[in-house]
Amino acid sequence: MQEVEEKENKTDTSSAQGISPGAVNNFIRKKKKLLTPEEYIQGILAGDISLLSQAITLLESSLPSHQALAGEILAGCLPHAGGSIRVGITGVPGVGKSSFIESLGVYLTENEKKLAILAIDPSSQKSGGSILGDKTRMERLAASPNAFIRPSPTAGSLGGVASRTRETILLCEAAGYEVVFVETVGVGQSEVAVHSMVDFFLLLMLAGAGDEIQGMKRGIMEMADMILITKADGENREAAAKAVKEYESALHLFPLSASGWLPRVRTCSVVENKGITEAWDTLLEYMAFTRGNGYFDERRKQQARYWFFEALNEGLKQHFYGDEEIRKKIAETEKVVMERKADPYKAARDILQNYFC
Amino acid sequence: MQEVEEKENKTDTSSAQGISPGAVNNFIRKKKKLLTPEEYIQGILAGDISLLSQAITLLESSLPSHQALAGEILAGCLPHAGGSIRVGITGVPGVGKSSFIESLGVYLTENEKKLAILAIDPSSQKSGGSILGDKTRMERLAASPNAFIRPSPTAGSLGGVASRTRETILLCEAAGYEVVFVETVGVGQSEVAVHSMVDFFLLLMLAGAGDEIQGMKRGIMEMADMILITKADGENREAAAKAVKEYESALHLFPLSASGWLPRVRTCSVVENKGITEAWDTLLEYMAFTRGNGYFDERRKQQARYWFFEALNEGLKQHFYGDEEIRKKIAETEKVVMERKADPYKAARDILQNYFC
Repeated sequence: MQEVEEKENKTDTSSAQGISPGAVNNFIRKKKKLLTPEEYIQGILAGDISLLSQAITLLESSLPSHQALAGEILAGCLPHAGGSIRVGITGVPGVGKSSFIESLGVYLTENEKKLAILAIDPSSQKSGGSILGDKTRMERLAASPNAFIRPSPTAGSLGGVASRTRETILLCEAAGYEVVFVETVGVGQSEVAVHSMVDFFLLLMLAGAGDEIQGMKRGIMEMADMILITKADGENREAAAKAVKEYESALHLFPLSASGWLPRVRTCSVVENKGITEAWDTLLEYMAFTRGNGYFDERRKQQARYWFFEALNEGLKQHFYGDEEIRKKIAETEKVVMERKADPYKAARDILQNYFC
Repeated sequence: MQEVEEKENKTDTSSAQGISPGAVNNFIRKKKKLLTPEEYIQGILAGDISLLSQAITLLESSLPSHQALAGEILAGCLPHAGGSIRVGITGVPGVGKSSFIESLGVYLTENEKKLAILAIDPSSQKSGGSILGDKTRMERLAASPNAFIRPSPTAGSLGGVASRTRETILLCEAAGYEVVFVETVGVGQSEVAVHSMVDFFLLLMLAGAGDEIQGMKRGIMEMADMILITKADGENREAAAKAVKEYESALHLFPLSASGWLPRVRTCSVVENKGITEAWDTLLEYMAFTRGNGYFDERRKQQARYWFFEALNEGLKQHFYGDEEIRKKIAETEKVVMERKADPYKAARDILQNYFC
């Protein structure tokens, strides 16, 4: 029987709330025996957080044997997945994302909703940090047995990280989670990936935009189903109200999204506990609207299709760019191309010809 | 010696202005002999429109021998390319793109600028039509010996069409064209491709936006270096002035682009001949600005790099999706995935495993 290194399970400790004593013992042991696919599946379907965490760790592992096992677990869980409301939440650092998520999360879990919180942050490898890594930021929520918090995987390309996050959503759904938040940091490519795996995309913004949003990637605003102006309290209240008007008129200039939904702009304040439940109500309004006009189902289908082709293309690239010889050649050619000493297409064709022969 | 079918040269007739009698005879003949790479290169560098057109036709050809010849021509022209101002122009049908291009084009060519006008329109295969196909829309410009108008290639994927368009820009530059317009239709993916091959991206819009821009793809607005409200004349003048204010305040909400340039919003009227030369002056202002801060050079380099990797990835996909067996398998799996009866990743891995073994 194979074993999972303790190292790989470290991230599990952040979701240790509600774990059974047996599972805790497993964490204490240096190595842990792998179970059969059926055992994982049954455990996940029964809502066992420890087994869910382990299955996610298997998903994130680069060992082929772990991947194979994860694939079997996923296949068994798939018929039980799909039942959650998937929410993407983004905003630049400092916008108050963690405290908003905690506030909304506490509201939901206190109302007996099972909530899973995931994150995509491919940049975290560089900074060494990880969104959600700082558990103290969500102390109240982390204490709830209805909440499952899973930090961002700490290795791999965006494509890899995103595909694992999407599979993690499916496992969480099979484990009975009714709402899944996928958090991103609002400054990179990952928003597009998240937008392609959620039902609703929420953008948190600060009033008095200008400098604060300079760090945000262009294009994110147009993906939002709701823009929520945070920290709308105290002296900031007026600026927040003004920001609402500005964003509303800006959004009117955008082409309508395929859902037919006109993105809403609202304010909230975590310290005054205002606008949090209202934000949730707006989300529910969106869900009713898109379920009513068929967009919800169609989008889920298109997303599955999208990820199928993403996985194919990603796999093709991995095989190609993973080749030592190819990588060396590309590094050399890249410079020549940038100095305009070779045509990019001709250079690419030459490399490909070598690869396929 | 190989021959080019007359069929493939049909598009050349749209750029027949300024053609030498010998070249015209070549067009009349049913088949035409191919020249040596050196002959094409020397002809293009001497500004021979007929040889330039033929070389572009070779670029667009799917025959391997034509592609090889085109590659050699391109390699010879490359050291002489890069000298033009590359301008992407987009806007939904009805915005008055052709008449704007004609007006600005006449202004430029009368001021002794050599102007090439290309188009990207992958959708034209479906509709059967092609942007710029209707030569009568640009009669005055087409008559100028300083203008070279080349319709959109009429076959291939967006990736293929875009790569050929980019190579066509290089050939036009080698032939001495100082300004290159790349036109797109403003409703699809092609804007991203065009944005990645030009220095300046111009978006034409109608006043009274709303319905008119519904057809425009979300995200295009954020790529614009200038938004030009067309048809700002007669009863429309007031609405256009209002639109300028609206777009200006909307653009202020966007994160600043990497160039550090705040996109301008202006109006123009072709019938009153207003705002056309001013639009050009704004473009020159942008060029001076981005040349001054180093963005221009850096962007050109990054674009070359981008197209190198695009060509690699496109080539990988072509090889894969071109496989009959693979295509059949994908078509079957796609349905299963969309019905949520298989995990997209697992399904993709299975197909890839087959491909690489």
